Amino acid sequence: MDYLTTPFKGVVEDFRGRRKCYKDDWMDAFSSGVRILAPTTYIFFASALPVIAFGEQLSRETERSLTTVETLASTAICGIVHSIFGGQPLMILGVAEPTIIMYTYLYGFASSRQDIGKELFVAWAGWVCVWTAVLLFLLAIFNACIIINKFTRIAGELFGMLITVLFYQEAIKGLFSEFRIPKGEDPTLEKYKFHWLYTNGLLAIIFSFGLLLTALKSRQARSWPYGTGWLRSFIADYGVPLMVVLWTAVSYGVPGEIASGIPRRLFSPLPWDSSSLYHWTVVKDMARVPVGYIFAAFIPAIMIAGLYFFDHSVASQMAQQKEFNLKKPSSYHYDIFLLGIMTLFCGLLGLPPSNGVLPQSPMHTRSLATLKKLLLRKKMVKSAQEGMEKQASKSEIYGRMQDVFIEMDASTTPTVDKELKSLKDAVMNDDDGEAQNKNFDPAEHIDAHLPVRVNEQRFSNLLQSLLVGCAVFAMPVIKRIPTSVLWGYFAYMATDSLPGNQFWERLVLLFIPPGRRFKVLQNLHASFVELVPFKYIAAFTCFQFIYLLICFGITWIPIAGILFPLPFFIMISIREHVLPRWFPPQYLQELDAAGYEEIAGHSFRSRNTSFKDGEPCNLVGEEEDDYSSGEILDEMTTSRGEVKHRAMSINERNERFQVHPDDESRT
Amino acid sequence: MDYLTTPFKGVVEDFRGRRKCYKDDWMDAFSSGVRILAPTTYIFFASALPVIAFGEQLSRETERSLTTVETLASTAICGIVHSIFGGQPLMILGVAEPTIIMYTYLYGFASSRQDIGKELFVAWAGWVCVWTAVLLFLLAIFNACIIINKFTRIAGELFGMLITVLFYQEAIKGLFSEFRIPKGEDPTLEKYKFHWLYTNGLLAIIFSFGLLLTALKSRQARSWPYGTGWLRSFIADYGVPLMVVLWTAVSYGVPGEIASGIPRRLFSPLPWDSSSLYHWTVVKDMARVPVGYIFAAFIPAIMIAGLYFFDHSVASQMAQQKEFNLKKPSSYHYDIFLLGIMTLFCGLLGLPPSNGVLPQSPMHTRSLATLKKLLLRKKMVKSAQEGMEKQASKSEIYGRMQDVFIEMDASTTPTVDKELKSLKDAVMNDDDGEAQNKNFDPAEHIDAHLPVRVNEQRFSNLLQSLLVGCAVFAMPVIKRIPTSVLWGYFAYMATDSLPGNQFWERLVLLFIPPGRRFKVLQNLHASFVELVPFKYIAAFTCFQFIYLLICFGITWIPIAGILFPLPFFIMISIREHVLPRWFPPQYLQELDAAGYEEIAGHSFRSRNTSFKDGEPCNLVGEEEDDYSSGEILDEMTTSRGEVKHRAMSINERNERFQVHPDDESRT
Repeated sequence: MDYLTTPFKGVVEDFRGRRKCYKDDWMDAFSSGVRILAPTTYIFFASALPVIAFGEQLSRETERSLTTVETLASTAICGIVHSIFGGQPLMILGVAEPTIIMYTYLYGFASSRQDIGKELFVAWAGWVCVWTAVLLFLLAIFNACIIINKFTRIAGELFGMLITVLFYQEAIKGLFSEFRIPKGEDPTLEKYKFHWLYTNGLLAIIFSFGLLLTALKSRQARSWPYGTGWLRSFIADYGVPLMVVLWTAVSYGVPGEIASGIPRRLFSPLPWDSSSLYHWTVVKDMARVPVGYIFAAFIPAIMIAGLYFFDHSVASQMAQQKEFNLKKPSSYHYDIFLLGIMTLFCGLLGLPPSNGVLPQSPMHTRSLATLKKLLLRKKMVKSAQEGMEKQASKSEIYGRMQDVFIEMDASTTPTVDKELKSLKDAVMNDDDGEAQNKNFDPAEHIDAHLPVRVNEQRFSNLLQSLLVGCAVFAMPVIKRIPTSVLWGYFAYMATDSLPGNQFWERLVLLFIPPGRRFKVLQNLHASFVELVPFKYIAAFTCFQFIYLLICFGITWIPIAGILFPLPFFIMISIREHVLPRWFPPQYLQELDAAGYEEIAGHSFRSRNTSFKDGEPCNLVGEEEDDYSSGEILDEMTTSRGEVKHRAMSINERNERFQVHPDDESRT
Repeated sequence: MDYLTTPFKGVVEDFRGRRKCYKDDWMDAFSSGVRILAPTTYIFFASALPVIAFGEQLSRETERSLTTVETLASTAICGIVHSIFGGQPLMILGVAEPTIIMYTYLYGFASSRQDIGKELFVAWAGWVCVWTAVLLFLLAIFNACIIINKFTRIAGELFGMLITVLFYQEAIKGLFSEFRIPKGEDPTLEKYKFHWLYTNGLLAIIFSFGLLLTALKSRQARSWPYGTGWLRSFIADYGVPLMVVLWTAVSYGVPGEIASGIPRRLFSPLPWDSSSLYHWTVVKDMARVPVGYIFAAFIPAIMIAGLYFFDHSVASQMAQQKEFNLKKPSSYHYDIFLLGIMTLFCGLLGLPPSNGVLPQSPMHTRSLATLKKLLLRKKMVKSAQEGMEKQASKSEIYGRMQDVFIEMDASTTPTVDKELKSLKDAVMNDDDGEAQNKNFDPAEHIDAHLPVRVNEQRFSNLLQSLLVGCAVFAMPVIKRIPTSVLWGYFAYMATDSLPGNQFWERLVLLFIPPGRRFKVLQNLHASFVELVPFKYIAAFTCFQFIYLLICFGITWIPIAGILFPLPFFIMISIREHVLPRWFPPQYLQELDAAGYEEIAGHSFRSRNTSFKDGEPCNLVGEEEDDYSSGEILDEMTTSRGEVKHRAMSINERNERFQVHPDDESRT
């Protein structure tokens, strides 16, 4: 309980640490020149699109008390504040799905009480923010962030999975709503006649599935074989917003005979409409909230404070993963304190508050990492290859690579040895002399061991927040997006969040029969697959799945649903006290690992024998591999039914065809 | 010109050869018992579905003079005749797309002439069949099939590609037609009001894309990791008909308020309707065709005879590829003779004739191949593994495998040595003694060298033809399929025909920049990719592509389009006389290879070095590999933004984690 006796310790330390590099935070941005604009626009789209979608969701759930204007405004304001005053400027802030869900419950409660009602909802939500801010201050002052390590993978992935399920639910609900007359609309309007409603619904199916499928495809563009690297990167980075634009354009291609208002488009007042301007005077209304309700606001505030503390810290942590090799200090305590201030402001302005978001925060760091690494890698590979051509010794080659590194990265000279240690070890270890030299591939060693360099600065975050601010005034354009495109976008966000979630990967594993598990082992796979016996994987996953069902069930309870973050806090205690009794510690550590450990795939052919040599692999049991003759034949036959010969290697192939029969003789 | 002086030689030899094994052709079917039903139903669906789709196409193009009833009836009758009297009973017959195209031109010509018109179209088409039959008889009698080797890959793939393009064209035309009022319909009907037409069109988009995507997915089921082998095989084999049923069921889920007749469904009279029964009396009408037109029918007959000769022979050849290791003799000449007889009958009955179809014919052989091979493989792997456990020598292991082979396959003892020769060589060649034994993987050797065994019999073909016959009487059910599902099916057939077509693979290669070609080399790839310099690949492909455009252009010419097979016959001459002057013979042989030669992928990492040792690979030039840092980071980052560590192997991973920190200490 040391941290309780030293209030402000964490906040002050964080502040001091960041103050030292504050000037660099700005100056470093200019060193990369206009290239900084690439990560900026990339992260702007990645950040603005969900906020627009959440705004539409919030607008429906709160009967238009809060709309996209407010979610964008909150994101912009908090983003600007954080990028200037925040501790960790790599973290991206935004209105996130948990906030939308909490506000939905707040609205459900407020609108059902006569003495608050729809009228005072925003004011009462302001009180919730006030209490939330107070709690966040307390958490920051009493150094609560040191317990961040208790938020292990199991809770994080469970929460991620719940959000995924809620996204799918939103997509499906939205799609169904396109076939119905919206609440409170005049059913005698032309566009609400059955055949136009049905047309609207069918268009919604086409647009939402169209967006989902094209967005998922465009995300993979980077690994396409086609096109230049520039084009592929562009599609991979901006494919999703491009697809939103594309499908919006398509939605304007409907024939003129269709009733106006079909397909339905985003509903939002403009920021200069009176309903938007009301927010500047919310403070006055806050005084009108009955005292009893002011205190009742404390209960949702506990939940929101807990959620924000959790979310904000994890987002910050993910933006500063060890692998990113950041040089500037972290700032968990101070950032929670600042989050409290921002939440207070948002409450007083009648805006839904923002907090650190996933996956945008690590995406931001990653997009800055590529800037420096690309050039470095190219030069180092080149110098190593030159060395190899001249038959240089290993240490000479390493020397050349080190020289390039130092030359390119003048600022960090004192740490070079430490940073390059693993690369050095890798290069020097194969000391079998010249004979082995041919097996040395500089590109491989550099990729595996070269530390990533990140351009840590505040400019890209500030700029993208300003762009979000501009988006508020682009509402007349944003309003043209069909709602169905947003439902597709919800489904896209949900689908895109699944790969890499080990909970999901374990769930999928349960559906793979033992004889087919080699399919998983063949490719890159998480290390638990090989290191934990299957029965423990299954038990752990079933427990987590049942827990997920409970959490999801709670969100369906009308007003008590507001307690939905509770099971996640309970999970932390279960993880600490109950799970270690059920699972052997080494397996629990693998299943609830701090980092994502991955193992390269074994080739299927060689696996059969190599595993019989006593490798630890529980997945290959008595069952024979389920690799049917039909499957082999499928792979060996073209669609026309032509059987492909398969040469084992190019050498074998050449031997067979050593004598080229004269082509003329065939004809 | 030897073959011209020995008329009937080929037909008689074929007949004698097949007569010897005719009894076995029937008896062998019973040896596999009820298991023969699996390939039978599999091939029935693969054969019936396109015939239904072609029937709908023919029905539209001939303004319902010929419909699905006729295409199914022709397929059934010809299938039954061929399975009983045919030379190669593994070949599947059916009404194919070229026939539909030819009939479309015939109808276009006939209906434009007052003295034939719509009324005498079928009778005139009967005369075309008569002439076609005469030409086929001549081709068979004068042993024309010996020139089958002149139909090289370039012509075959060009033709396949044209059919693919025509399928896509049909799918797109069909989809657009769903938004329009069909020719000759009453535009005042409720279902032809704008909003219902539009609804019909939107539903068509959903159903056709739905079918296309789900059918493509289900085709890959065999390699899914999920589910039991039985389930995956079932989905892979029957997925496409299942999806047709599924989407037809979905099409009945439209709400009742929708105008009747939406979505549009297949149009066809029932086989017992008067318009269908007319076909039995076509012969009488044939006498009414003016004499001039009877002789004019000779021109399309040349085209059709050429097409059928080409198609039928190639289908037969594909069903008897060397790799299938068939034991019974081929029968090209005799089968062409029989095709003439069947064409004559179809003409007299007013049916569009059938011929050997791709890819169903090799699919049929392949489906029969799995029956015998599966059990054999399992037993041989097991015996080899037992041998290895006992540290047996190579020759002992081979001896065991041979024993199993002989035991399982008693009928073919005399040829065992020959059949197993390549397996024997493979097993015995690694004669480095015990040290190397660990690298010996019995499964690999057996798969690569074990000859495939096919159950050559007539029963499965007869049974599937009878089932097609039954389908004629199931028209009331088949009529429930929405036309839009068929347009999706056309798109599916087109898409499914692309992989494995080297012309397509080369076209795709043109769009892969030099730095990205390692993506192709990484996976299984056709051997020409490595053996032919890129400029020759590009030149050859461009030539073929321009030729394709010309062929496609010809199909658009109203009546002269009937000459569309002509360029393919000309191509044979170009291949023989012109191409050898443009391309060095060894490259031409690779690009126009008789078989599909495939090379296993190189791992990306090791490729870099291995190719520098002087391997012949034109694709790796000065260009650096286009494998950006962004792409590496993409692969190393989860959707949540979490960075994955990548252990190189399980051993390396274990070293790092040798001491398991106590799990408790973390919490």
